[in-house]
Amino acid sequence: MDWDPLSSQPIQPKRFDYDLSNCGIQRALDVLGEKWTLLVLREAFYGVQRFDDFARALGCGRGVLSDRLKTLVAANVLERRDYAEPGSRPRPEYRLTAKGRDLYPALMALSQWSERWDPPPDGPVAKVTQRRSGRPVRVILTANQKETSLTLADLEIEPGPGARRLKRK
Amino acid sequence: MDWDPLSSQPIQPKRFDYDLSNCGIQRALDVLGEKWTLLVLREAFYGVQRFDDFARALGCGRGVLSDRLKTLVAANVLERRDYAEPGSRPRPEYRLTAKGRDLYPALMALSQWSERWDPPPDGPVAKVTQRRSGRPVRVILTANQKETSLTLADLEIEPGPGARRLKRK
Repeated sequence: MDWDPLSSQPIQPKRFDYDLSNCGIQRALDVLGEKWTLLVLREAFYGVQRFDDFARALGCGRGVLSDRLKTLVAANVLERRDYAEPGSRPRPEYRLTAKGRDLYPALMALSQWSERWDPPPDGPVAKVTQRRSGRPVRVILTANQKETSLTLADLEIEPGPGARRLKRK
Repeated sequence: MDWDPLSSQPIQPKRFDYDLSNCGIQRALDVLGEKWTLLVLREAFYGVQRFDDFARALGCGRGVLSDRLKTLVAANVLERRDYAEPGSRPRPEYRLTAKGRDLYPALMALSQWSERWDPPPDGPVAKVTQRRSGRPVRVILTANQKETSLTLADLEIEPGPGARRLKRK
C-alpha cells in the first residue's frame, strides 16, 4: 500500500526512494510532449500525409511543423517517403508506421476523457466504431487477459455529430 | 471509407471538409498539451501533493510548476486545499479530483506504448495490477459493451523491476 495514490496520507517519502528516470510516461513525452506534436499525429490518423496539408490543417508555423515532423520521423512514429506526381518534382509524404498507429489508444483516451468531462456542444467530432460490428469503440483499463485490444485496422473513423462541415470556398 | 486512415490513397480533401475546432484531442491538449503538465499529473498519481515535493520530484523551475498547477486547478483536474501541521502556517496541497483521476487511462496508454516500442533497460518502472485479482492491468481498445473499465481505486500501483531505489543521503 506504500504507493496508494488514493490514500489520504501523504506518501511522498516513498516517492523519493525511487529514481523514475526510465518512467514510460517520461519516455513517451520525450517524443510527444508538446501540443503540436500530438496534433500532427491527429492529422496523420485522419489521413493527412503532405507537408502543405499538415500546415493547412493545423495552422501552425512551417518551422514548428518541420521540427515536429522531424522529431516524429526520428522516433520512427512517422515514415518519410518521396512521392512524385507525373510531371512534378518529388514531394515528401509522411505516413504512420506500426509504432505510430499504436499510439491511437493514447489519443483516443485523451479525446474520450475530454468528451466525458467537457462535452463538446454538438457532440463528438469523430465517431469511432468497430468495422465488423458497427459497435462504438472505447478505451478501457482491464485485467481481463482474454480481452484483446482492437487495432486501428479494425476501426471505422467517421465524422461525428460535432463535425461541422465547412462551406466550400 | 472516406476517412479510412489506412488507405493508401491520400484522403486529405475530405479532411478539409470539416472544422475540427471542437475535437476532443485538441480540447484535452488545451489543458494538458505540455510535457511538464503531464509530468505534474504523473507525480499526483504517485501521491505527491505539496508544492515543494512536486518541485523536487520534477526538477523544474518553480515558476513553471506554479503555472502548470494553476492550469490544472482551473481545469478542475487538481483541487487545491490548505493543509496545516500543528504549529506551522498553512501550506497548499494539490489533490486529484474525480476528473483528474479519470486521466489515468491516458497516462497509462502513453506509458504502455513507450514500454512496448522502446523497452526500458530494466523493465517497467511501475507495476500496475488489479487489487482484487493481482492480474496485470492494460489499456485496450474494445467494442465489447459488457467489458467495464477498471478505475484507479481498483488498481495497485507498485514499483516495477525498472524502479531503481535511490541511496539514502
